[in-house]
Amino acid sequence: MHKLVLIRHGESTWNLENRFTGWTDVPLTPTGIAQAKTAGRLLRAEGWEFDVCHTSVLKRAIHTLWHCLDEMDRQWLPVVKSWRLNERHYGALQGLNKAETAKKFGDDQVLVWRRSYDIPPPALEANDPRCERNDPRYARLASGEVPLTECLKDTVARVLPFWNEAMAPAIRSGKRVLVSAHGNSIRALVKYLDGISDQDIVGLNIPNGIPLVYELDADLKPLRHYYLGDAEAAAKAAAAVANQGKA
Amino acid sequence: MHKLVLIRHGESTWNLENRFTGWTDVPLTPTGIAQAKTAGRLLRAEGWEFDVCHTSVLKRAIHTLWHCLDEMDRQWLPVVKSWRLNERHYGALQGLNKAETAKKFGDDQVLVWRRSYDIPPPALEANDPRCERNDPRYARLASGEVPLTECLKDTVARVLPFWNEAMAPAIRSGKRVLVSAHGNSIRALVKYLDGISDQDIVGLNIPNGIPLVYELDADLKPLRHYYLGDAEAAAKAAAAVANQGKA
Repeated sequence: MHKLVLIRHGESTWNLENRFTGWTDVPLTPTGIAQAKTAGRLLRAEGWEFDVCHTSVLKRAIHTLWHCLDEMDRQWLPVVKSWRLNERHYGALQGLNKAETAKKFGDDQVLVWRRSYDIPPPALEANDPRCERNDPRYARLASGEVPLTECLKDTVARVLPFWNEAMAPAIRSGKRVLVSAHGNSIRALVKYLDGISDQDIVGLNIPNGIPLVYELDADLKPLRHYYLGDAEAAAKAAAAVANQGKA
Repeated sequence: MHKLVLIRHGESTWNLENRFTGWTDVPLTPTGIAQAKTAGRLLRAEGWEFDVCHTSVLKRAIHTLWHCLDEMDRQWLPVVKSWRLNERHYGALQGLNKAETAKKFGDDQVLVWRRSYDIPPPALEANDPRCERNDPRYARLASGEVPLTECLKDTVARVLPFWNEAMAPAIRSGKRVLVSAHGNSIRALVKYLDGISDQDIVGLNIPNGIPLVYELDADLKPLRHYYLGDAEAAAKAAAAVANQGKA
């Protein structure tokens, strides 16, 4: 049996300000740092060991991983950073307040943008200063690979190559993998692993900073999954995520 | 022309306590953290950009790199960690105070152990609790590869494969490489790059936390090297390193 541990980054400044973040590279809040450290201490207390870590190219996930590694005293573990584990791109909504956007467009429209599987938010213009196409971290990507917006289906499509080419081979070779990523890149992985329908994935929320363990069989099919630590706290934190986009 | 930047980690707790550190995994002091941040701010202010970072598997070098990357807002850069960039192994001296060791064995003997090219300090016993052979970070090494002591010649011998297999190919392919490492792994690189004799390398000291730039030609032969920032401060810091082992 293989075990895979997924952590959504701790609270970011724009989680706190209730803004759509997407690929905007905002830092953790002090609460987010504390969540990350708590996750690391929990992993250490339970004796978890890892062989490789995977994260995005966004600092809220990278710092969450660094704090975990510090608490586990495993700073030396190899870390692979990939844009494919980035948060879903939120298009022209990036930077806007979720509640204000809900007031303006209605709760229903925002819920569609936040949680529909295949309807993306309005796209960024390529000349919008928020557009990431000139960011050096994406310089090696084909221009079409840097999105101007994404629905979750798009996120799944660009996360899965990383699963197939990096994560699955590592796990199959016996490596114990720790992933620090984002609400929607983790939802993409979970949807794929558990075979969740396009409809049901809308209702699934990933809380910040709580290690989510997947036990996988030899074919990497999930046997079960669970959050580490206090299950009730994890459920509450997930419900809070679900409520963020309401006016 | 290629540019390579080498940084010796900031002050560690055992630099401060004047102990032989070697492969012991001690953290930075607050001063060491400040040195690392200063190095990162300097690199950012001068507009340095990098494509890949190389560091050891010891947290004083890893944290120095992380602080630099934070100050440069380049947390997303790929980082390769290798035991081959570790500090020289200090054998049975690891953990001992340098001045006390000098009182006990004499300045001359300690200078021999610290700075002779091919005379290693007394070896650790394989059953010494300080021995790193059971440390999981070295689990994939052949047992003979984990040293019980090293002279600088030994350090050069295990650093050079990393130069040949990782650093030089990266630099040749046009990548801009930032290295965060240790006094003796950097001396090993500098000795090789500049063709410094076994005698002369004894007198060369690398200050903590000051970026050392090597400009290399197409064959990776050095054109010149210099410390970033205040040259006088760098010279003073190097002289302080030279004096650490005196009673």
